Amino acid sequence: MKALRNTWNLIKQEEISWPLFVFFSSDIEISRAQSPKAVDVLAKEIGLLTDEIEIYGQTKAKVRLSLLERLKDQPDGKYVLVAGITPTPLGEGKSTVTVGLVQALTAHLNINSFACLRQPSQGPTFGVKGGAAGGGYAQVIPMEEFNLHLTGDIHAITAANNLLAAAIDARILHENTQSDKSLYNRLVPVVNGMRGFSPIQLARLRRLGISKTDPETLTEEEISRFVRLDIDPSTITWQRVVDTNDRFLRKITVGQANTEKGFVRQAQFDIAVASEIMAILALTTSLQDMKERLGKMVVANDQKGEPVTAEDLGVTGALAVLMKDAIKPTLMQTLEGTPVFVHAGPFANIAHGNSSVLADKIALKLVGENGFVVTEAGFGADIGMEKFFNIKCRASGLVPSVVVLVATVRALKMHGGGPNVTAGAPLKKEYTEENLQLVADGCCNLQKQIQITQLFGVPVVVALNVFKTDSPAEVDLVCKIAKESGAFDAVPCNHWSAGGRGAIKLAQAVEKAANQKNSFKYLYSLELPIVEKIRIIAQKVYGAQDIELSPVAQSQVDRYTRQGFGNLPICMAKTHLSLSHQPERKGVPTGFILPISEVRASIGAGFIYPLVGTMSTMPGLPTRPCFYDIDLDPITEQVKGLF
Amino acid sequence: MKALRNTWNLIKQEEISWPLFVFFSSDIEISRAQSPKAVDVLAKEIGLLTDEIEIYGQTKAKVRLSLLERLKDQPDGKYVLVAGITPTPLGEGKSTVTVGLVQALTAHLNINSFACLRQPSQGPTFGVKGGAAGGGYAQVIPMEEFNLHLTGDIHAITAANNLLAAAIDARILHENTQSDKSLYNRLVPVVNGMRGFSPIQLARLRRLGISKTDPETLTEEEISRFVRLDIDPSTITWQRVVDTNDRFLRKITVGQANTEKGFVRQAQFDIAVASEIMAILALTTSLQDMKERLGKMVVANDQKGEPVTAEDLGVTGALAVLMKDAIKPTLMQTLEGTPVFVHAGPFANIAHGNSSVLADKIALKLVGENGFVVTEAGFGADIGMEKFFNIKCRASGLVPSVVVLVATVRALKMHGGGPNVTAGAPLKKEYTEENLQLVADGCCNLQKQIQITQLFGVPVVVALNVFKTDSPAEVDLVCKIAKESGAFDAVPCNHWSAGGRGAIKLAQAVEKAANQKNSFKYLYSLELPIVEKIRIIAQKVYGAQDIELSPVAQSQVDRYTRQGFGNLPICMAKTHLSLSHQPERKGVPTGFILPISEVRASIGAGFIYPLVGTMSTMPGLPTRPCFYDIDLDPITEQVKGLF
Repeated sequence: MKALRNTWNLIKQEEISWPLFVFFSSDIEISRAQSPKAVDVLAKEIGLLTDEIEIYGQTKAKVRLSLLERLKDQPDGKYVLVAGITPTPLGEGKSTVTVGLVQALTAHLNINSFACLRQPSQGPTFGVKGGAAGGGYAQVIPMEEFNLHLTGDIHAITAANNLLAAAIDARILHENTQSDKSLYNRLVPVVNGMRGFSPIQLARLRRLGISKTDPETLTEEEISRFVRLDIDPSTITWQRVVDTNDRFLRKITVGQANTEKGFVRQAQFDIAVASEIMAILALTTSLQDMKERLGKMVVANDQKGEPVTAEDLGVTGALAVLMKDAIKPTLMQTLEGTPVFVHAGPFANIAHGNSSVLADKIALKLVGENGFVVTEAGFGADIGMEKFFNIKCRASGLVPSVVVLVATVRALKMHGGGPNVTAGAPLKKEYTEENLQLVADGCCNLQKQIQITQLFGVPVVVALNVFKTDSPAEVDLVCKIAKESGAFDAVPCNHWSAGGRGAIKLAQAVEKAANQKNSFKYLYSLELPIVEKIRIIAQKVYGAQDIELSPVAQSQVDRYTRQGFGNLPICMAKTHLSLSHQPERKGVPTGFILPISEVRASIGAGFIYPLVGTMSTMPGLPTRPCFYDIDLDPITEQVKGLF
Repeated sequence: MKALRNTWNLIKQEEISWPLFVFFSSDIEISRAQSPKAVDVLAKEIGLLTDEIEIYGQTKAKVRLSLLERLKDQPDGKYVLVAGITPTPLGEGKSTVTVGLVQALTAHLNINSFACLRQPSQGPTFGVKGGAAGGGYAQVIPMEEFNLHLTGDIHAITAANNLLAAAIDARILHENTQSDKSLYNRLVPVVNGMRGFSPIQLARLRRLGISKTDPETLTEEEISRFVRLDIDPSTITWQRVVDTNDRFLRKITVGQANTEKGFVRQAQFDIAVASEIMAILALTTSLQDMKERLGKMVVANDQKGEPVTAEDLGVTGALAVLMKDAIKPTLMQTLEGTPVFVHAGPFANIAHGNSSVLADKIALKLVGENGFVVTEAGFGADIGMEKFFNIKCRASGLVPSVVVLVATVRALKMHGGGPNVTAGAPLKKEYTEENLQLVADGCCNLQKQIQITQLFGVPVVVALNVFKTDSPAEVDLVCKIAKESGAFDAVPCNHWSAGGRGAIKLAQAVEKAANQKNSFKYLYSLELPIVEKIRIIAQKVYGAQDIELSPVAQSQVDRYTRQGFGNLPICMAKTHLSLSHQPERKGVPTGFILPISEVRASIGAGFIYPLVGTMSTMPGLPTRPCFYDIDLDPITEQVKGLF
């Protein structure tokens, strides 16, 4: 076994020759002005062996999980979560802080560090929003590789998800049009004179309490139980997915061709990252664990109200085969040549919105005991961070060292009563001129998010992502209030315009905070009833007075509890634009009753997800989608206008 | 510029240590028993420079198109097409012949050669059929990489296809719910105080005959023409795709969510390889050409009956960006370590069913003047080969040297009046016992396919793919009749059981044939009217008495002719199971009138496709799909039961 070097021999990128603060017109121009080093060079610098990487082109490589076995005795590095205050619709810059922080740590302070980021959904890249590679001088390069197919993980998820969906409808059709005997003859055919169950069929027999292994010995009743999943079509929760913003697939009717013999039903397509398989990819800890989770996914109930799983449909192995490469994290680099893992990107509402456990685990080994792994949680800390702690850390067993809470003067002014902030519309003058009162009033949201962090016993450093319109007095005020509110430290950051150099103070603060006493704890015990767990999150995190379940939600809770799924953690599907369920209520709303309209479950991923209002799982294309500006130069092969 | 070596220094694979003819139980076991050499080693052996390949893992690499420029003065090698007689539903082994032939040429006769194969659709891999990597001792390895995601090309096609589909429906919705002014303000917004058209919008203005470039100067009438594509929803021919056998998507209703405001319509999903973008990938000759073809794709008509294109929707650049890596062929290897390109796999009925022009062109340069490139045409020669010559060779300008026509005793017996051959059912005794009469009677189909080949002026070598149940007398009879029927040579092949060694005689015959006089010609002139071109194919190739167009087909022909698409080649969508349109008519049917039910067009790919009967573009899952046997070993990471 080869031990890791304590400090990497990382070759820093040359600083981009344009003077800082004289900006390129777009993120992609900044990205292109820097030549990424070859990914095999980067891999070597950080201690990966040749047979531990699978190169994908010049700038991407998948890292094999065998690394975890080789480095199992290596102590983990420090584990840093970047979360945010309740954001405006424009976002507060968590990704740029994540990238800026590792650039500062590694390229400027010579401390090993890794950024672990989510893979963005490709669909929205061509719709309204741009990519998620960070931005300015704190981004992952090449950004077009990051934002487009990457190494095919989302495509693999789509293929696996849709194979399962096709298997469900085809099975219902075949059961509805064939006798028990005919189904049995087809499911267990005579091949070359022999007849036998496949391993996945034997597993199903065992679940049915049938210990026979010779197909000729089953009774008619046993045959009937074996061949009929008896899926109740009205209970199907498994949806098809595409990685495209296709609003016309939000509600559809399938099965209208004559060949489907009238078995039509209403269905929908979700965007691919909303697939439970994406949530599994993010939470799994090994190939074996992934396979088990894929098999446990509940897709519907049978006519008796019992759950029907992917395993019952016989498709577990095929799903695992489709996902065998996706389970390996993808290695890329920041603009300053420091390493990044890009892996998994589950929805942050109906799923937990965090990148993968496996990437974090591998990175924690690679950085070594004194190094840092920085990862990001989607939305505000009340959602992304709460799920990071209660769901992701539970799955991984990892203990976070520090939370970096990202704030902007703009968002704080909004929480202080500033006018609406809308994507696409010009910002009102309150946001471009100094206004200390609005800032002071809005800091209540920052305070509350600090308090939420403290519920979990982890030190918090506030990173104020500075915009050029922020006044020094505004910046000072935020930092002062943050420190008074219990933050270990609060520092202004200029990584967007200055790269890692602009986040050196943040890096120093994080390093100090990581050496603080850490009394990390989960917010609730899994043994509590589902409703009780929801109430704890609503009251302690969101500040709700209480919760109120719809009758549908209550019956769903009862069913999941009866089915034995009561001990799973909770994944709240709530708006990120307010601590409450009402996006227009800024600051720190109080006195509200959180309405739970439905309660659903991702059994393979391993969580129950209550819906607070309706959640859209399929974005649409606007009248003028981004693609009007996107082009490919056929001579240089360069992508133009991506962001 | 670096010239190529005349002969490659190819390191042959070690022969698999199991004795030949003692078979492994499955193709994947044979595949696994051989360790592929590292793809960068293979690339070096065949003269590729380091910066001309993009490695994808250990066994796959994409090859950059810049190679064509570097080697532009290198003479092309010989160009061999593998086609087949009218097949049984079990297939005659064209892929194994293709692989066996290059193994014989390169690993046994030391002649440079390349196999250029189609990428198989992933969906059917989990349905009924297995993969398409060849089989036995004549296959591409690793077969699971070949048959699964490969390097993501089909996923890229899916993404591009579905972005265009989403853009169509979203555009109809936006046009239906907004005034001209509102559409214009959104399509040409003020950004940072500036308002301008994007390049793709300027191109649309030029097509509309509007030469203005300042958005403020358009008249109301010009604005209206600019903002309204006025798509007639009933004419939409662009379908969504998935690479999954999902029969419930054959006919669906989309747009049923409230957010789509009642603009529901009937639609369908096709399997991904049926996308016109796949046909374009197979026929394109450069990035610039691909972009132009993508832009020209016609997706519907407007209310005036004029074609609406991808370019009109503003999405050409985005489609090209999504396809920028897919355009590069993927390098793999045969079981004996010789090079293979895998690139594109369009449907063989509604498209032309041949692998890519680009892979062939690059391979022809790499093998050098005395080398061979062997590629395969789908279905029987009457379909795949006819399209190869009239469509693919027209797009590429390449001239084929030899046709290898694959026959089996099994198929010939079927054509001679043997009982039905059905997938899944055991073969009748006529097929497992010697029956010279059936063979002799069935050779009429072989004769006819030889004659079809001769229409194009290319020498034909018959490759009899020998099964262990074929008697020596049967084999001799077929070879004798083939030679009497005008074949340059006819040889039995044992590549399935013996690898390249079993195809040495075939390789020698092909080498001789390639030095024959070659008077290659197309079957018809593009200038002929559409109906005349269809009639020539029907009469000269299929042996039909005449053709008969339905009124719908006739009106479609009239419309395409009026729209200026009359000069495209023809891509017949006909059953491959008979020379006629009736699959049950074996041998050489005569006296039939070929019915043309519809005529459609793939304008970007560049062909008109008449439908002879209905063509399914979405396979389904059977009661017991292949996936019941597929599994992944979580420890060894090996795929089990794939074929």
